Amino acid sequence: MAPGVSNEKKTDDEQSSKENFIHLCNPHLEKMKEDFLYHFALGTGTHDFPTLFGDVKFVCVGGSPSRMKAFIAYIAEELGLGSPDCDYPNICAGTDRYAMYKVGPVLSVSHGMGIPSISIMLHELIKLLYHAKCSNITIIRIGTSGGIGLEPGSVVITRQSVDATFKPQFEQVVLGKTVIRSTNLDEQLAKELMQCSKEINQFNTVIGNTMCTLDFYEGQGRLDGAICLYNEEEKLQYLKEAYDSGVRNIEMESSVFAAMCNLSGVKAAVVCVTLLNRLEGDQISSSHDVLLEYQQRPQKLVGYFIKKSLGKV
Amino acid sequence: MAPGVSNEKKTDDEQSSKENFIHLCNPHLEKMKEDFLYHFALGTGTHDFPTLFGDVKFVCVGGSPSRMKAFIAYIAEELGLGSPDCDYPNICAGTDRYAMYKVGPVLSVSHGMGIPSISIMLHELIKLLYHAKCSNITIIRIGTSGGIGLEPGSVVITRQSVDATFKPQFEQVVLGKTVIRSTNLDEQLAKELMQCSKEINQFNTVIGNTMCTLDFYEGQGRLDGAICLYNEEEKLQYLKEAYDSGVRNIEMESSVFAAMCNLSGVKAAVVCVTLLNRLEGDQISSSHDVLLEYQQRPQKLVGYFIKKSLGKV
Repeated sequence: MAPGVSNEKKTDDEQSSKENFIHLCNPHLEKMKEDFLYHFALGTGTHDFPTLFGDVKFVCVGGSPSRMKAFIAYIAEELGLGSPDCDYPNICAGTDRYAMYKVGPVLSVSHGMGIPSISIMLHELIKLLYHAKCSNITIIRIGTSGGIGLEPGSVVITRQSVDATFKPQFEQVVLGKTVIRSTNLDEQLAKELMQCSKEINQFNTVIGNTMCTLDFYEGQGRLDGAICLYNEEEKLQYLKEAYDSGVRNIEMESSVFAAMCNLSGVKAAVVCVTLLNRLEGDQISSSHDVLLEYQQRPQKLVGYFIKKSLGKV
Repeated sequence: MAPGVSNEKKTDDEQSSKENFIHLCNPHLEKMKEDFLYHFALGTGTHDFPTLFGDVKFVCVGGSPSRMKAFIAYIAEELGLGSPDCDYPNICAGTDRYAMYKVGPVLSVSHGMGIPSISIMLHELIKLLYHAKCSNITIIRIGTSGGIGLEPGSVVITRQSVDATFKPQFEQVVLGKTVIRSTNLDEQLAKELMQCSKEINQFNTVIGNTMCTLDFYEGQGRLDGAICLYNEEEKLQYLKEAYDSGVRNIEMESSVFAAMCNLSGVKAAVVCVTLLNRLEGDQISSSHDVLLEYQQRPQKLVGYFIKKSLGKV
């Protein structure tokens, strides 16, 4: 069966069903006796996924393993499920590719940097949630990014993830051929997150487009990489064009994240803090403490959202 | 200055100079007072790069931080510079994005998974070597891969890194426009590594093309991802076409590695072990011990090469 648009769209029925299970777009998995998720070091032959993960409702993902460990400790305390001294074991301790932590209905998973790294993680995460028979999952990326025209420390909730030419699409190469996929995110979820930010009222938050690039230096118009064959004027022109098209921040994972969650019928959002204003520079030179506080903002916002969703606010 | 082919080729003079310094393709760096390598948590304002790194001659890079730590302990013992009990501190302890270890003239750095992840690391590594005034650097990626038509455990030394359509090129998006870069690797270095493998004579080694993809599942024709909209016949046809074009293994970092080393005038090689034969399956299901032994093969080969280069064999 060749990949085509008709296979890649969910029907309204699927989207509106009350118990929303993972939609697995792969008929071959049914035939496999067991499934080993290599980069998690977890397998259906050795682990009881429904028991381990069946109660998960919220999955938070982010690049850095230590940040995702900090998040699970934070959310545990917020939900009254842990104490500051608790240690949370890494569920993926058998590998150093990703780290995974769980408390109550919340799973926290690291994804490394860039589209390929998060894509491997999402393939295995989506299969994990499917094997565990999870339903009504919300998955949120909490990350860092470069801002455009925003005060550093501002949080961007992504309306649409766009590519380096500002188009809301993700190009996936399948068997050597390019397939275009939609990068739409859940509008309602973005609005709910924005409302949460208003309620906690601690930092500037906007809804805007997020540009997702394959490279941090040349791909984002930085002048400070090992390779740079353009000038400052060309850089600023590019960033201003991005701003004019609605882009408010730049990161490296949101497009494949949106595309894969879309295809799997999972409600998804991207919430990133901006570490600098790219119209003013390229180097991330704020102090360690300032950057640490910035990085906690998406955690605070999403932590509050989870509490509110569980009726604990 | 717009990027053009003429800017991206090294002259014969540069290649044949006896003391081969890093060729930094970025005129803007000269103007910067200091350079903070954010993803290494190292900066020229706080660290003395020539003292810390000036004697480096060999850089080995690989995906997994624990594997790169194991490599530094291995090479230290091989070179008579350490004992089995030694602990090697992580030079990038201020961040969890990458890990870096050093012993004598050897630097060992992790790069995570995928082109964007290794590209961030290489930008900062090339700048580090430049700031440290290093010369005559050899950089080798020691990694894991899926093999095509090879017995699992075979080692592939890359002749050319090719893309998903088997072309020896890397598409880099710069300010929203696609630039094509060469992925040639050092022929002489590949031959020397092959000779080393013959001398140690412990495992099957071949020189072949390496396909570099942006995705581990759909991008490599696997049937066991969360998304798969093709059948087994189409998968096998694709892998056989790859084999017929000279591809012997598939991984996710070699193209940008080759392209960036090329532009920076650094001698580079890619040495990957194959964990499975993709013509026979998709899951990596060998036992932990077997996989561990396979992963040590590129380390052994490159360790022997470094010893030989230093006149210690």
